[in-house]
Parts: sequence; structure tokens; C-alpha cells
Amino acid sequence: MKRVLNLEAKKFLGKKIKVAGWVNSRRDHGKIVFLDLRDRSGILQIVAQKDLAKGVKEEDVLEIVGEVKKRPKEMINPKLETGEIELKAEKINILAKAQTLPFDLRELKLSLPKLLDFRPLSLRNEKIRAIFKVQREIIDAFREIMKKLDFFEFEAPAIVASATEGGAEVFPIDYYGKKAFLAQSPQLYKQILVSIFERVFTVAKAFRAEPSVTTRHLSEYISLDCEVGFIEDWQDLLIICEKVIKHILKRVEKNCQKELEIWKAKIPQIKRKIPRLKLKEALEIISRKTGKDKTSQMDLDPEDEREICKFVKEEFGSDFVFITHYPTQKRPFYTFEDPKDPNFTLSFDLLCRGLEIVTGSQRISDYKTLVRKMKKFGLNPKNFKFYLQAFKYGMPPEGGFAIGAERITKQILGLKNIREASLFPRDMQRVDVKLPKKK
Amino acid sequence: MKRVLNLEAKKFLGKKIKVAGWVNSRRDHGKIVFLDLRDRSGILQIVAQKDLAKGVKEEDVLEIVGEVKKRPKEMINPKLETGEIELKAEKINILAKAQTLPFDLRELKLSLPKLLDFRPLSLRNEKIRAIFKVQREIIDAFREIMKKLDFFEFEAPAIVASATEGGAEVFPIDYYGKKAFLAQSPQLYKQILVSIFERVFTVAKAFRAEPSVTTRHLSEYISLDCEVGFIEDWQDLLIICEKVIKHILKRVEKNCQKELEIWKAKIPQIKRKIPRLKLKEALEIISRKTGKDKTSQMDLDPEDEREICKFVKEEFGSDFVFITHYPTQKRPFYTFEDPKDPNFTLSFDLLCRGLEIVTGSQRISDYKTLVRKMKKFGLNPKNFKFYLQAFKYGMPPEGGFAIGAERITKQILGLKNIREASLFPRDMQRVDVKLPKKK
Repeated sequence: MKRVLNLEAKKFLGKKIKVAGWVNSRRDHGKIVFLDLRDRSGILQIVAQKDLAKGVKEEDVLEIVGEVKKRPKEMINPKLETGEIELKAEKINILAKAQTLPFDLRELKLSLPKLLDFRPLSLRNEKIRAIFKVQREIIDAFREIMKKLDFFEFEAPAIVASATEGGAEVFPIDYYGKKAFLAQSPQLYKQILVSIFERVFTVAKAFRAEPSVTTRHLSEYISLDCEVGFIEDWQDLLIICEKVIKHILKRVEKNCQKELEIWKAKIPQIKRKIPRLKLKEALEIISRKTGKDKTSQMDLDPEDEREICKFVKEEFGSDFVFITHYPTQKRPFYTFEDPKDPNFTLSFDLLCRGLEIVTGSQRISDYKTLVRKMKKFGLNPKNFKFYLQAFKYGMPPEGGFAIGAERITKQILGLKNIREASLFPRDMQRVDVKLPKKK
Repeated sequence: MKRVLNLEAKKFLGKKIKVAGWVNSRRDHGKIVFLDLRDRSGILQIVAQKDLAKGVKEEDVLEIVGEVKKRPKEMINPKLETGEIELKAEKINILAKAQTLPFDLRELKLSLPKLLDFRPLSLRNEKIRAIFKVQREIIDAFREIMKKLDFFEFEAPAIVASATEGGAEVFPIDYYGKKAFLAQSPQLYKQILVSIFERVFTVAKAFRAEPSVTTRHLSEYISLDCEVGFIEDWQDLLIICEKVIKHILKRVEKNCQKELEIWKAKIPQIKRKIPRLKLKEALEIISRKTGKDKTSQMDLDPEDEREICKFVKEEFGSDFVFITHYPTQKRPFYTFEDPKDPNFTLSFDLLCRGLEIVTGSQRISDYKTLVRKMKKFGLNPKNFKFYLQAFKYGMPPEGGFAIGAERITKQILGLKNIREASLFPRDMQRVDVKLPKKK
């Protein structure tokens, strides 16, 4: 007998079928037992004689043969997709027994560290699982719109030869007794590939040895990266970015209604054109609003990000804002300088509900300018010989951006901590479980 | 004026358009210059007065305004998609100059190390680029069939806490002064997620510190991994694997005709049911064929793989063969033992044209059996506490397999070396360029 998924059971009214899944809950009513059976499609109510369900507990894995019946009217559950039917069990086969659960899986009241220690188990909770259905939709939507815009997907390397973007936040690897590193981003590779495919994207792992514990950083995260050649103006990038974000929001809204409801989350408000502020303007606004003089700052700190988002929400009704023109010294060497003022770059961040979720810029595409800039930044062009080939032999004007997949998930659902938005979060103290103290 | 892609130029016969791309080649004929302009869509012939094309060289990046004209009959090139038209240039704008090329990009006659040293440049060659169009199609086809079969995609972690599958072939990471490792496979995570989503897949990076240089190993490779719960028989896995491989071949055949032609490659022959041989049977056949007694071997070596594929091709007309029932001691701890003979496992490899491209098995899903097996393999279950949660609290019968993306690319196109099938191959000696000798 072929197994039928719970959600398909409706099609078999009055027929005998076989279902399988985990016991989501058990309720005893005298000689009758009600089981909520959970499979990948959803929940189905099983009605069984007490004898038949003997010893059956939460999270046991069962295979059940029975007849699909209409529920009595007063038993219909409109909240459940299978709420009008139930399966009258004739045979229950226990495929696997579960040990006694260490906590209530339905009412998951755990601290975040505990929740993560028990990730394989806590993921069985509907609310936790919902996060990753939304994240999946986000990534799939990114891939879909990229392909529609004629971008070529590639798989970026994780092992790299040098700390590409400078900085200390890099993980060294013992590579056959030599030193290599984990990629901080697919940046250099996506640029190289613009000289081949013009428009490229990747769903890549990026690694940052972030030296502090925050609610917004992960050691390993999913970077939704793209890069585009033959731009006519750096603002082309903002337009593409808007399209991508809109497509993501549209698909999440359409396909994740249930998940958004579970989290009581509302899709962020996005305008036809997302408001744009130069960093300088943003700092002036924040100074005015808070009474603290921030105008000489080179960047926004987390508090500033929240403040400027609050302003934009009130002023324009938008949950998004582009902050542009970051100082040249605060952006990586490959960032294109503003011809009108080379102290600033043609760069941008996209903030959503108080958090940076995208970062991008036009890049230097001229070989000589790029080499000069590297030297200015204290980098040795010899170490970038491989990368520089792309520019030496003809690179069109180009730029790109990267979306943090966990960050956009967090902001859409209103999660408190970025770790909640990573299936298996890695940070200073944790790889699956807490790392042992240094010896 | 909006840029038009080369392949779209046909639609603008008699009209003025702007195109952009790289100079693929230049031919001078008296006062007239012919340029083949290459963009992401293909090649377009440009006709320009000598003055206009002054100084224009191969790989320069140009923006050209001109009129789309029919070619004179004798000039039609049926091999080119735009072979019936050409663009009469009126204005040429050089977006970027290319330096003199270090070798002929059209007739790429380089040794493999040289080819890889110049990867960013050599990728501009059509034949090299074709490899990655095929690889893209393979990965996309894998994703498509997985989704169709109701598998949930996830992004597997690259940083792991311990060398999961035992063995020395693992890269250590300096993780905030502590030790972590690069994942040898997404194995444990995909199993964990079967207890949540039943059917999962991932396009993941896997890392192996392969201590020797071969034509079939990479230090970083793309693993097309899947895992499925509620199997009724381990042979369910072979059936799913057949479906996946067939779908991949179908899509490559349909969408990569040009690329296959460039490589003079024929899609491998696949039968409705791929022939299946137990390892023992395969070794007997090889022994009989070669006259060398191989019957006490525990595995197939590369030569055996070629030999048995030759046999299957001659005997059954198939380019694929499943080899099953590998010895228990040669397969990882989580592999399910054959109830009929626990010295062997319910495991399989899929060979294609002389090379293993898939490996899989049913897994041990019972908690106690798994713990017992770990101990037998000298592993400490305490180190697997996280993973074991999935089994402790109810895991259905399950199994899965992994396809090596570079390997299947290599076998379809008939490449000689696996490095050719990796955009940026990493091996003992190379990360982009050759690593400096050990100090």
C-alpha cells in the first residue's frame, strides 16, 4: 500500500489509506485516543481505540492504515487544512520510538542558547520551522529574479589564498601545512566573472571572524550576491536592488501567509522608489533628531540605523532607505570614488526596519586606477595578480551588491537575534553546541 | 539610447541601435574593418571604417552605435545565430582597453596549469565557458527535479565542530583560537533535517584534504546532496537516483546542444533501469575479464571502475552501473548493514563511463543501533550529541546520496581532468594560483 500524505487524505474520503509521520500530540478521551499526526505536508487527526495506540507517545514515528472519515460537525477544526476529516485507525505500526522529550515542543519556552543546543529537536516546532520556510522563499525569490534579469549563477569558492578585503576578521585554514583562508565574500570572484558572463549571481557562504557577540553577526552566513557589467550609471544598481527586494517581498507575501501569521509579521512597506539619503544627510538628520552631533561620523552605528529608519518611516511611510556615498576610507579598495568628491564613494547600504540588509557599490573597473588604489590601501597588487587579469584585459563599467539572507529574514519576521534566522548558527562561542573553553 | 543585446539585433533591421561587448576578433580588409563583438548573448559582426576602429584590439570593451543591415548573400554565416546581419558602425566608444594578450584566446593551446593560472582570461574562450554552461544546467536540473519530488532545499554549514566521518582528510580552521573543521560533506545535517522536513537536498560545498594529486579529486567541490525519510526499501534510493540522473541528462541534452557539439560530446546512454551489480559480482567479473584475481578486494580502484563500466557498456549498452553492497568496514558509521549479511551494507555507488559520480546508502535510523555502531567504529557518541538528537526523538527509516557536480560534468563532456570542471579549482598545490612552497 502506497503512503498518502496527510494533506492528500481529503481526496480519499471513505477509502482505506496508509499515512506516516510523527505524533504531534496525543489526547485521551476514555476508550478513544486522538493523535495529531505530523508529516511534511501538515497535520492529520487520527482516531484510534486505546488498545491500538498503546504506548504511543509524542514524536514517535508511526505508519497508520485506516479509513478516511468526515468529522462530526461539532468536531470540525477550521484552523486545520484537514480539519473536516479524520483517519479511523485500523493498524498502527511504530517505525521509531521517541525518548521522553526534555521540554514541551508545542509551547517552546526556551532561552535562545537552549533552543540552539537543541536545534535538531526544536526545529520540529511549527513556529521555528516557519522561519526557514520564509528564508527558503527569500532565497528562491532572489534566484528567480536574478535569472529573469539574465544573471548567470555560479558557485563561489570558500577557500581563498589571502584575506581579500583586508582586515583581521578572517579565519585561517591549515591547508596542507600552508595557510589559506575562508572567503569573507565572493566579491573578487563575482567581479572576475563579470568579465565573462556580464551579469552573475551566487548564493554563497561568507565567513567573518567577528570578534564580538552581537545580535546581528554570524561567523558563517548566506550571502545573496550579484554583480553586473555595462552599467551606465551607478544608480542602475539601486534600481536592480529595488527590483530584487520587491520580488522577494512579493513572493514571501504570496507564499508565506501562514508563516507570517504565526510570527504576527507584516511585510515591510516598500515605495515605488525607495528613499535615498547621502550618509552626510542622514547624519545631519540624526543629529537634529537626537540632539547629538553626529555630523563628523564616518558611518552609522546600530543606534543611528534605527534612528534614520524611524525618520524615513514617519516621513515617507517606507520601511526601507538607501544610504549612499560612504567615505572612501571606510569602503574596500575596489569601490568607485565619486568623481565629484573622491573622499566619498558611489556606494550604498540598504536599511530595513533599523538594520543594514544590503551593501553595494560601483567598482573600479579601470586596471591602472585599481592598482593605484590598492597601493594606496597598503595592498600589494602582486597578491592580486589572478584577480587583476579580469581588469588588465578589458572590464566594462560594473558594480554589484550583496543581501544578507539571515538579516532580511530577521527583519521580515521581526526576530530579535540573527541566530534565530540561521539553521545551524556559528558564532564566537558556538558551532552546533557551545565550544569548549580555550585550553 | 538603451543597449541592445547582440542576439536581439535581428529585430532591429534597418534601425539604429547601440550594442556593447568585447572584441572577439578583428579582421582588416583594406579600408574596412570587421569586428566580432562578443556579449553575454553571443557574437555580432560589426563593419567599420578603418578610421573609426583605429587602435581597436582584441578584448577591448566597446560600445557601438550603428545601423543593423542584412549581409550580402555571399557573406552570410550559417554557423552564427546573427549570421544574416551585421552592424554598420557609426560611432565606437572604447569603454576599456585590453593589454596585449599573453596567448591566442581563440586557439587555446595551453597546458592545464597554464590554463588555470590564467583562469579569469581563459574563461573568455567559448569552449572553456561551455563547460560551465553545462555545469549550470546540471545543478539547475538537480534543483528542479528535487523540488518536483517535494524535497526541501537547505544551505548546509561549511564550518563544523569535528571531523564527522572520521579519517584524516579534513582541513582544520583556526576558529577564534579554537579548533574547527571544514565540512567533508553535509551528511549529518541532511540527516538531522530529515527528522524535520522528511525530504531535503542541498547544493553544498564539501572539502577534502585529499593528500595526493589525481585527475578525479578536488579539495573543494560541489556536492549535490539529498536525503529522504520514510523509505520502504533501500532500493527506493536507487529509483530516486535514476530519476535525478535521467532528468539531468534530459535537460543537458535539450538545453546544451551547442556546448555538447563544441566538446564533441554525446549524452551518456541510460537504460530504463540502470544495471545493478553487487560489489562482489563486479569483482568476479573484473577478475574473469582481466585474469587478475580481485575477488578479495574491499573496493574498486580506478582501473576496476573503468573495467566494469566497459563490461556493462558491452553487455547492456549502458554508460551507467550501480555497484551495491560495499563492505561494512569500508563505509561510514551511519551506513545501514544488510540484514542478510552484516558484513556488507545497503550502500551503492553509481559509476558513469568509468568513474564514480554518486555515492549513497540507507542509513541507520535507530538510535541505539547508531550509538552501538559509533562505538564499534571508535567514535565517541558524546561528540555527536547534537546529531543524535534527531534519532533519539524519532527518526523514520531513511537514506540518501550525493552527486559530485564536477564529476558528472567531467563524464558528460569527456574532460580529462576534474580541474577543468571547476571554475576555480583548489587542490594540494593550487588556490587560484600555485601556492608558494612550504617555508
